[in-house]
Amino acid sequence: MWRQLLPASACRPLQTRLLSTRRTASSETISALKDLLGDRLSTSRSVLEQHGTDESYHKVTPPDAVAFVESTQEVSQILKVEPENMSCRVQAGVTRELLNTDLRATGLFFPVDPGANASIGGMINTNASGTTTVRYGNMKTNVMALTAVMADGSIIKTGSKTRKSSAGYDLTRLIIGSEGTLAVVTEAELRLFGNPEAEKTMICSFNTMKDAVETCAAVMQMGIPVALMELMDENAVEAINKTEEAVEWSPLGLVSQMPGSRGLVTDVAVPPSKLADVIVETQVDLKETGLFGAIVGHVGDGNFHAMIPFYQDNQELMTKVKSFSNRLVERALAYEGTCTGEHGIGLGKMNYLSVEHRDSVDVMHTIKKALDPKDIMNPGKMFYGNAPSY
Amino acid sequence: MWRQLLPASACRPLQTRLLSTRRTASSETISALKDLLGDRLSTSRSVLEQHGTDESYHKVTPPDAVAFVESTQEVSQILKVEPENMSCRVQAGVTRELLNTDLRATGLFFPVDPGANASIGGMINTNASGTTTVRYGNMKTNVMALTAVMADGSIIKTGSKTRKSSAGYDLTRLIIGSEGTLAVVTEAELRLFGNPEAEKTMICSFNTMKDAVETCAAVMQMGIPVALMELMDENAVEAINKTEEAVEWSPLGLVSQMPGSRGLVTDVAVPPSKLADVIVETQVDLKETGLFGAIVGHVGDGNFHAMIPFYQDNQELMTKVKSFSNRLVERALAYEGTCTGEHGIGLGKMNYLSVEHRDSVDVMHTIKKALDPKDIMNPGKMFYGNAPSY
Repeated sequence: MWRQLLPASACRPLQTRLLSTRRTASSETISALKDLLGDRLSTSRSVLEQHGTDESYHKVTPPDAVAFVESTQEVSQILKVEPENMSCRVQAGVTRELLNTDLRATGLFFPVDPGANASIGGMINTNASGTTTVRYGNMKTNVMALTAVMADGSIIKTGSKTRKSSAGYDLTRLIIGSEGTLAVVTEAELRLFGNPEAEKTMICSFNTMKDAVETCAAVMQMGIPVALMELMDENAVEAINKTEEAVEWSPLGLVSQMPGSRGLVTDVAVPPSKLADVIVETQVDLKETGLFGAIVGHVGDGNFHAMIPFYQDNQELMTKVKSFSNRLVERALAYEGTCTGEHGIGLGKMNYLSVEHRDSVDVMHTIKKALDPKDIMNPGKMFYGNAPSY
Repeated sequence: MWRQLLPASACRPLQTRLLSTRRTASSETISALKDLLGDRLSTSRSVLEQHGTDESYHKVTPPDAVAFVESTQEVSQILKVEPENMSCRVQAGVTRELLNTDLRATGLFFPVDPGANASIGGMINTNASGTTTVRYGNMKTNVMALTAVMADGSIIKTGSKTRKSSAGYDLTRLIIGSEGTLAVVTEAELRLFGNPEAEKTMICSFNTMKDAVETCAAVMQMGIPVALMELMDENAVEAINKTEEAVEWSPLGLVSQMPGSRGLVTDVAVPPSKLADVIVETQVDLKETGLFGAIVGHVGDGNFHAMIPFYQDNQELMTKVKSFSNRLVERALAYEGTCTGEHGIGLGKMNYLSVEHRDSVDVMHTIKKALDPKDIMNPGKMFYGNAPSY
C-alpha cells in the first residue's frame, strides 16, 4: 500500500504517499488509515498534487492519500553516529545536507551527492550517485544495512554493520535501486568517510569534446585520485555564464533562458572508452534535430546528462525531444551502456529497461511478483507489463 | 540441475558437477547427459569424490556426476581485456592467478585475493574477498556484469559494462554470494585497477592484541591508503616461524604441527570498533577451552579467522571445536557482526544464517523458491529448511 518515501527534513516526520497510478484505494482503506493516523493522513487536493509531481515532464499523478508517518519505534534520535566505525544509522527521511551538517563535528561525511538535497530514502530507492561517485562510489557501495517494510507488513533488517558479509542473499543491494517496488525503506546504515585534508579544483578548457573526454579517461587510467570529474559542453558553460543567480546544477541556467519551459534530463552511461564517441554523436544529433540543449557529465563514470528545455504544450517540440531521447538510449545501448546511470526507471524509462535487460527483466519481474504478489508496492513503475496507460 | 562451477584453469574447460546432496539424479537424467556430453560427463568414483571434498571438516558429499562443460558459445578467447575501460570479460573457470598473469602486460590487475588460487566463478559464488579488500573492495564491488544460466535453462546477462547503472533490480549482486543456489555463472565482467607504482611493507609488533587492533582502526580512520592490513596473533607468528617451507596462508603452519590433523577456519566479521574486544575475548575462550589455535585477521575490514587444527576421529576435540565456533558466532552477532565475512554459508553455517538474518531469511527463501521452484540449484545449501540430514 505504501509508496516510496519522499524527501522530508529530519525535523519533520517521514512522509509516505499511497499508491495511485494503477488503481484507486478503496474508501474503506482510506477510512481505516484515517482511524490509524488521524490528521497525519491527508487527502487534500493540494497535498495530493504536491506529492504527485517531480522534475520530469510526466503528468501529475497524484496518490490517493499522503501519510505523514513517524518512525516505527517513534525514536527520538534521528542520527546514531558511530565515528569509530565510520558509519551512522539514519531514518529514511533525513536529507543529505542535514546529515552532513550534523556530521561536521566528527570530521566525517557521507559522500554520495546527487546534486539535489534529496532524502536518504529517495537516494536509496534510485541508487543515486553523482559528482563524487568517481571517488567514493554510489548508494550501493555506501549503504551497509537497511530496515525495510515488505509488502506483507513484515519488518526486515538486511546487511550488517560490518564492512563485508557473505551471509545469504544481498537484500540490501536488491532493495537499493528498486524504486519502492519491493519495500519501503525506513532506516539505513551509511558508510562515512574522513573529510579530505586538502582539495584542489582545476578548470581545464579543451578545443574539442573528444580531447576533453580522452584526457579524463587518461587521468582515470593513471589512477590519479580525483574526488570529482565533471564535464560541460559549450552550451552548458554559456548557460552558466549567462545565469547571474546561484546556479542550480540541474537544469542549469538553460531553462531560465527559455522562460516557462521545463527540462528533460537524459541519463545514459557508457563504458569509458566509448564516452567521447557517444557525446560527440549526441551533439551532432542535437544540432541536426534543431534542439537547444547542453551536456554535462560525470565523465569519470561514463555518465552524462543532456538537458533539453521544452514547452509542454508545443507538441512538435515534445515529439522531437522524445525521439532525440530514444535515439540517445539506442546509441548508449549499442555501445554496451545503460539507459540510466543514476536516475532510475520510474515511469519514463520502462520501455528502455525492457530493451536493455531483455534477457533478465523476466527474472526481475519474478522477484517482484514473489515479494509483492498483490502488486501494492509502487505499482505501475519499472515494469512495462504493470504500466498504467496514460 | 547444475551445481556451482569449480576451480578450473582456463586451459581446461569449465567444470560443473551435478547436484547430489538431497536426492539422486535419475538414471534417465544421467543417460541423457551422457548423450549430450559424451566423455565430458564422468561418473567415476574417484572423480565424484574429488568433486565432493573441500577444505572443511564436512563429510565428502560426492555429486551424481561431474560435467566438464565448455563455454556456451565455445569461444576461443578466454580473456577479452579492454584496458581503456579498465575491465575484462572472463569465463567463470578462469583462476585468479592465471588472470593476473595474463593481465601483466596491460599494467592492470584484478585485485580481489582470497588467498587460494580460486576460480572467478567460485569467488563470485561466495562473494570472496581477502587481504586487499580494505583498499579495493570485494567481489560485489568489482564484478560489473554476469552471464548466468537460470534454473529454467534461460541464459541471462545482468549488469552492464558501465561503471554504474540504475536500470532495474541488481541481479548481479543478488547472484554474487548466492553460492550456486540461484544461477550458474558462466562469464563475468571484472573491474581492473592499475598496478601501484610503489609499495611498502611494514611489520609492526605490539605488546597487546588490543593495542594492535586499535592502531589499525586509527590508521583506517585517518584515511591512510593501505593496500593490505593483516593481523597475526602470537600463535600464528610462532607457527609461521616454525614452518620452514613456503607458508600456505590457510591453515598456516598449524596443521603441520599436528600431523594428520585438519583445520577448522572460522570467518566472523564485526564493526571495527568492536574488533579488539571480540579478538581478545576469543583468545580467552580458546585458552579456557584448552584449544590450540591461531588468529589471523583482515583487520581493516573487521574480519578475522581463528584456525583450529583437529583430528576428525577425536570426538571430544570435535565437540570442543564446534562449541567454540558456536560461541564465536554468538559473540560476533552480539557485537552486530556477521557469521561469515567472506567464506559463505554452505553446509556449515546454515544455522548461523537463520539466527543472523532471522528477519529476512524468509525473504531470501521466497526469492530462492521463485527463481528455482524445483530446488535443483545446489540444493541443500544455505537454507536450513532445505538441509539434508547428515
